[in-house]
Amino acid sequence: MKNISVAVVGATGAVGREMIRALHQSMLPIAKITLFASPRSVGMQLSSDFGNLTIQPLCPGCFRGIDIALFSAGSSVSREVAPRAVAEGAIVIDNSSCWRQDASVPLVVPEVNPAFSHQGIIANPNCSTIQMVVALHPIHKRWGIKRVVVSTYQAVSGSGHRGSAELQRQIGLYPDNDLFDTSHFGQPILNNVIPIIGEMQPDGFTSEEHKMRFETRKILAAPELLVSATTVRVPVFVGHAEAVTLELLHPADPDEVRMLLHSSPGMQVLDDGADRQPMPILSASCDDVMVGRIRRDPVFDNGLSLWIVANNLRKGAALNAVQIAKLLYNGR
Amino acid sequence: MKNISVAVVGATGAVGREMIRALHQSMLPIAKITLFASPRSVGMQLSSDFGNLTIQPLCPGCFRGIDIALFSAGSSVSREVAPRAVAEGAIVIDNSSCWRQDASVPLVVPEVNPAFSHQGIIANPNCSTIQMVVALHPIHKRWGIKRVVVSTYQAVSGSGHRGSAELQRQIGLYPDNDLFDTSHFGQPILNNVIPIIGEMQPDGFTSEEHKMRFETRKILAAPELLVSATTVRVPVFVGHAEAVTLELLHPADPDEVRMLLHSSPGMQVLDDGADRQPMPILSASCDDVMVGRIRRDPVFDNGLSLWIVANNLRKGAALNAVQIAKLLYNGR
Repeated sequence: MKNISVAVVGATGAVGREMIRALHQSMLPIAKITLFASPRSVGMQLSSDFGNLTIQPLCPGCFRGIDIALFSAGSSVSREVAPRAVAEGAIVIDNSSCWRQDASVPLVVPEVNPAFSHQGIIANPNCSTIQMVVALHPIHKRWGIKRVVVSTYQAVSGSGHRGSAELQRQIGLYPDNDLFDTSHFGQPILNNVIPIIGEMQPDGFTSEEHKMRFETRKILAAPELLVSATTVRVPVFVGHAEAVTLELLHPADPDEVRMLLHSSPGMQVLDDGADRQPMPILSASCDDVMVGRIRRDPVFDNGLSLWIVANNLRKGAALNAVQIAKLLYNGR
Repeated sequence: MKNISVAVVGATGAVGREMIRALHQSMLPIAKITLFASPRSVGMQLSSDFGNLTIQPLCPGCFRGIDIALFSAGSSVSREVAPRAVAEGAIVIDNSSCWRQDASVPLVVPEVNPAFSHQGIIANPNCSTIQMVVALHPIHKRWGIKRVVVSTYQAVSGSGHRGSAELQRQIGLYPDNDLFDTSHFGQPILNNVIPIIGEMQPDGFTSEEHKMRFETRKILAAPELLVSATTVRVPVFVGHAEAVTLELLHPADPDEVRMLLHSSPGMQVLDDGADRQPMPILSASCDDVMVGRIRRDPVFDNGLSLWIVANNLRKGAALNAVQIAKLLYNGR
């Protein structure tokens, strides 16, 4: 087995740090890891599972000799730097939304569409989408999904370190709400929920809600699938939750759904009455997508509702990217 | 105008205290207010907008001379004591779920079904249901609603003082999660969301979710309405939020919906892009039901989605009960 050289671009961010951890845990034969970040972090020492590493500058030629580069530095960096990395010989796995809508770029969740071809760039989907499609894919294959209505309960870490830091400071200051710094979310996030994630679009949905529709269709290869999302930020550090109601083409018995999901990859069914259901606090120590509240839904003839929780930094971002890297490596 | 004598049963609870405040603000000509609570609170002095009041015992004859009694002391007290109060001459407005399913008991939201007849007991609906039907009623009258899919984001005060106290203590102890007392919710509620409210039922829905279906149908007089709810507790002190997706019988333009709701009673439309949307923190100082995120929903031919927030202790409980009392008084 050939050893590989890996890079993380955006290594100091919330997802970047988690990518380094996930790479270390991945059992990939990593000969070398190179960390890149924005100019203000260059030269900084980052303590990681691979030891202390120095942040390198993104300069011409810097991707030569690198096999796989994981990007999580935002769309503008991805747009500019990813093609250069590919030209210099790396395969890019990009966590930004920059390339996801590009028809020539595969959008990959290994449990769902592991057999993809690429031209150097592979897109990692939106966090809310990844956890949903892991659960929907086996259901769609077995019973066919016609409609998806989803409401999300999204953790602050989904918006990076600054989101987590802002909630943390508000907890420390509570109940002195007047002292709250709300510069990141624009509103207090402690003791509140905010019904806007991303930018508002002309049709009244947000960019995050559009991503959930577009990406779910692309990953499931179901261009006609009807998807409606309401994405909401809640005062939770890590772990996105989703209330999902489906209209299926054929009737599904909840016990059969439980058995099917239980035997599907990357998933844990936690559905034991009121005592044991998926919750964000459980996602800290769980890399699987957790599914519960599985029940027949009476609003549709073939209705099914479920509750999906996953760690947004791990399966929702870093871990999924590393799982794609493993597919690439194993597929050689 | 005849002055009236009013009682509050369960006066020391979160909703009971809010009932006293709402009564004081109501402009009802209250000649006398009598407070009842459980035996352990009898004799206690309660400081209120009406001055210091002593908690009285619930004993035979205690409702003689009382015109209207607001109950918020739980189902078992309502079941036992409300009929006695009626027999002694009071009209009971009951905030528990005890009488809501009784076909002879009206379930009232003044903005929706103010013209009711009663036999002494009037039921106040569930908090999540009240705020939803205030918004759905004008939409249903104008366009007809076929299906309702709702996910809730419910405040801890909906489960009483103990819920709020538990969240408060957890904020104070954070990040020492190991010290968290989770006796009330059974799980940490800070930094978490809990996808169970009420008791789990055989069909996989909870009692809270059943209430939202049954009560919405009864209040809107729409026994065929298809309603599916997922009710979730979030770490917010006051203010329930709801993501609602509707299938209508006829197409509704979002601007028309905004105009209709804007001119409907008890409602405020806050729907100004990303800048101004309903949130729990805004409900502390707002007695109206706030509606935003109004948009055409593409999962249905005649789909409409909206986001509804209200103060669960005020419009969701105490204020609605006092508004029923005002209807009774004005209807004399």
